[in-house]
Amino acid sequence: MTDIDTNFPETSFLEVSDVVERAVDASPRWRALDPSNRAEVLRAVADRLDLAGAELVPLAISESHLTETRLRGELFRTTFQLRFLAGVIDEGDYLQACIDTADESWPLGPRPDLRRLLRPLGPVAVFAASNFPFAFSVAGGDSASALAAGCPVVLKAHPGHRQLSARCGAIVCAALRDAGAPDGTFAVVEGDKAGRELVTHPDISAVAFTGSAKVGRMLFDIAAGRLRPIPFYGELGSVNPVFVTMRAAAARLDEVLSGFVASFSLGVGQFCTQPGILLLPVGVLDYDRIRTMVVAQPSARLLNDRVDAAFQEGLEALLHRPSVEVLAEGSRQPDGARTPTLLRSSVGGLLSDAEHLLAECFGPVSLVVEYEEESHLIEVAKMLEGQLTATVHGELDDEVVPELLDLLADKAGRIIWNGWPTSLAVTWAMQHGGPYPATTSPLHTSVGAAAIGRFLRPVTYQGMPDHLLPAAVREQNPLHLPRRVDGEYRIASGQD
Amino acid sequence: MTDIDTNFPETSFLEVSDVVERAVDASPRWRALDPSNRAEVLRAVADRLDLAGAELVPLAISESHLTETRLRGELFRTTFQLRFLAGVIDEGDYLQACIDTADESWPLGPRPDLRRLLRPLGPVAVFAASNFPFAFSVAGGDSASALAAGCPVVLKAHPGHRQLSARCGAIVCAALRDAGAPDGTFAVVEGDKAGRELVTHPDISAVAFTGSAKVGRMLFDIAAGRLRPIPFYGELGSVNPVFVTMRAAAARLDEVLSGFVASFSLGVGQFCTQPGILLLPVGVLDYDRIRTMVVAQPSARLLNDRVDAAFQEGLEALLHRPSVEVLAEGSRQPDGARTPTLLRSSVGGLLSDAEHLLAECFGPVSLVVEYEEESHLIEVAKMLEGQLTATVHGELDDEVVPELLDLLADKAGRIIWNGWPTSLAVTWAMQHGGPYPATTSPLHTSVGAAAIGRFLRPVTYQGMPDHLLPAAVREQNPLHLPRRVDGEYRIASGQD
Repeated sequence: MTDIDTNFPETSFLEVSDVVERAVDASPRWRALDPSNRAEVLRAVADRLDLAGAELVPLAISESHLTETRLRGELFRTTFQLRFLAGVIDEGDYLQACIDTADESWPLGPRPDLRRLLRPLGPVAVFAASNFPFAFSVAGGDSASALAAGCPVVLKAHPGHRQLSARCGAIVCAALRDAGAPDGTFAVVEGDKAGRELVTHPDISAVAFTGSAKVGRMLFDIAAGRLRPIPFYGELGSVNPVFVTMRAAAARLDEVLSGFVASFSLGVGQFCTQPGILLLPVGVLDYDRIRTMVVAQPSARLLNDRVDAAFQEGLEALLHRPSVEVLAEGSRQPDGARTPTLLRSSVGGLLSDAEHLLAECFGPVSLVVEYEEESHLIEVAKMLEGQLTATVHGELDDEVVPELLDLLADKAGRIIWNGWPTSLAVTWAMQHGGPYPATTSPLHTSVGAAAIGRFLRPVTYQGMPDHLLPAAVREQNPLHLPRRVDGEYRIASGQD
Repeated sequence: MTDIDTNFPETSFLEVSDVVERAVDASPRWRALDPSNRAEVLRAVADRLDLAGAELVPLAISESHLTETRLRGELFRTTFQLRFLAGVIDEGDYLQACIDTADESWPLGPRPDLRRLLRPLGPVAVFAASNFPFAFSVAGGDSASALAAGCPVVLKAHPGHRQLSARCGAIVCAALRDAGAPDGTFAVVEGDKAGRELVTHPDISAVAFTGSAKVGRMLFDIAAGRLRPIPFYGELGSVNPVFVTMRAAAARLDEVLSGFVASFSLGVGQFCTQPGILLLPVGVLDYDRIRTMVVAQPSARLLNDRVDAAFQEGLEALLHRPSVEVLAEGSRQPDGARTPTLLRSSVGGLLSDAEHLLAECFGPVSLVVEYEEESHLIEVAKMLEGQLTATVHGELDDEVVPELLDLLADKAGRIIWNGWPTSLAVTWAMQHGGPYPATTSPLHTSVGAAAIGRFLRPVTYQGMPDHLLPAAVREQNPLHLPRRVDGEYRIASGQD
């Protein structure tokens, strides 16, 4: 028995070929739109999704067990993101337009006129995640940034929300068509076979993926093993460690603990930025009190039966590790709703069993690791794998902090001070990524303005007549872009 | 018998481990230098190499058979490049510093202070190329851009110029030490085993490679197959096609042909941007005349006996392809000096045997492909693999040109109009890269200002106290960097 809709028709091999062929046809016309026109299309897609909220949110609830409040917020985040990225391409710096005019006296010999800009890669395959049925799914961040870049998208739907994916896909396709995007700019396919076909398809030029380490690595290997390898932007998993210094624990333990419990059990622990490890000084934790705080958390069902079963398996494996004790044991109610579990270990236990204790267990569980001296924080930071986030709760002049922050910046894409990782602003300065296994491509982000850059590659035009150049690098700057000219960055002076 | 020094001691497994360990130790101190301090160190390295020219150039001549003029120019290019990249990090935009200040009224909920910048990846392995003993070798572009980024470099020397590599390595190490760089910032290792050890070493965080498709793909596969895959920036090969329209051929055939012959035989054809294919309208070429032009080219020895043997093998394979005829047969003199070979085929021959005719044959050979109508140019462009460059010789209002340029921009990193690919300016707007197999990483360049970006990854600091932030994103902008603040790009107002 499963609550995943296994009768949903899967996309056949021929259908996938057809979808990719249409994406290839759409590609030159979609990328030929001026960024401001593409921005208008993205805003039209956002408008259409907002209008469909009354239909989409109940569908998402029925397939994901997430609450209406959460899903309404997530849909808002999704359409905000489309509009935010529309603004980013409107501004135009994302093209990195750069001009070196011809220079007879260049030290290495006469230099021709050189004009560089970024160009869309071509059709992109996006694998939707289970845990954000809107924001990391059909019209989520990966699709939005690839479309903003000028790439058609073929989206592989997540089986956890098939009806919702189909409806969102239909709405996005209709909105794109009505706003003037070429036929084939967007499509949704179903099934693991269709997904693998996309990753191997010679006309797919990049892949974005959010999901498990196991599936992500398998697809990464396929992408890297192609006759012509392609970029694979995979977000695979993270335990998002939190380090609490001795003085921070002494100054405000209650605040730290209540923040921690709220963060690790938020959304039944189903966030990629969920803090899976909390390092605390030994002796400060009142075990009864933390148990009371944890069991007071609301119960809720996980996304679906597969996620629930995987969580149960991961939890049992953790419970059997020799150094692990239970601080608060979560329950599973007859309807499947779970309360969170909190475990405890020591730094010695963690270091001797890191492979198991530092593996992501997706769901409502976290591990408190008690340390004896602050040098242990350095030891733990040194042996961490790549993370999406790392958090430090400290005091302004804690001695251990500078070295700890420097080590953590080698391991994680976002470093948080006296806060919690489970909120992810969509802004210019956001970074959502990190060294392997957090992601397969540490130079990139899947959230924020820079997410667009994953789907663009540079091209330089040499000695090209003005009318044959892309508009972005023509002499009169018809797109009003910020550009670097002869080494100097120039902000466009506004519309003519 | 070979002119490659096979008695040169190879670096042992333990020595490589030691070198990498020292690079790991150097890493936090090298990256901690302000960019302007690191720029000063790079300039000191350039000064020291310039001073050593009288020693290095003769050594390079003895190991590479290249001319003194060429090698003096190449050494100048190498030190120019170090100084140019020093200027790029001095300017500071390469850090992409970006600040979103805290905003209580951010639409998705209160936004914390977020500060993003790029951070060096860590120790980088660089594989030197054979064909540029200075500019793509020990102190070449890959080393310079990794060092500029703030990454220690372990360089795998090319066996074609071992003495020169050892001397350049010693000079770079001494210059770095004297200028205050930490011990371990740079090292040279010898031998294929040492190279493979670097690519698999857990503490190497990226690889840059210039060389053959066979070795490059093998190393790429190793890098991608690691437990923790790392970025592999490989430049593998390119045939750099040149398309001549009918009207361009009618207007100035002689100019095109003399430019072509000079370009494909420049440096005995040993440039990665050598034009390996020239598409000409059928019926315009005077076979006697082009033969005369080609045989008038000076003879010279290839880089070494291995390159010579590989060229001979590749040339013989081309000569045996059914559609290939000889226009001008090159010679090999008793001392090994070669004159260039020019071959001829048709579009039909090319399309039916593309795998062989479009494979790079490194050395003094090129192929004229005669076409019957300009639509054939489109057909050829469509079936090209990824290229470093593609060139069009055309007239301003040629009908075929806009579509041809758009197709070529999908296939190549640099598009040249009425010029030749065999010159590669070191500037802000240069792009030296392209889709596979031109490179393994189409989003990047190995020449020009953007080459530094290969060795940096983004990190965002959230809610961090000012004194714990990296200087690049502190409130008072102590490094005087251009930064994006709350979405708006701001150029620093100069030194305080």
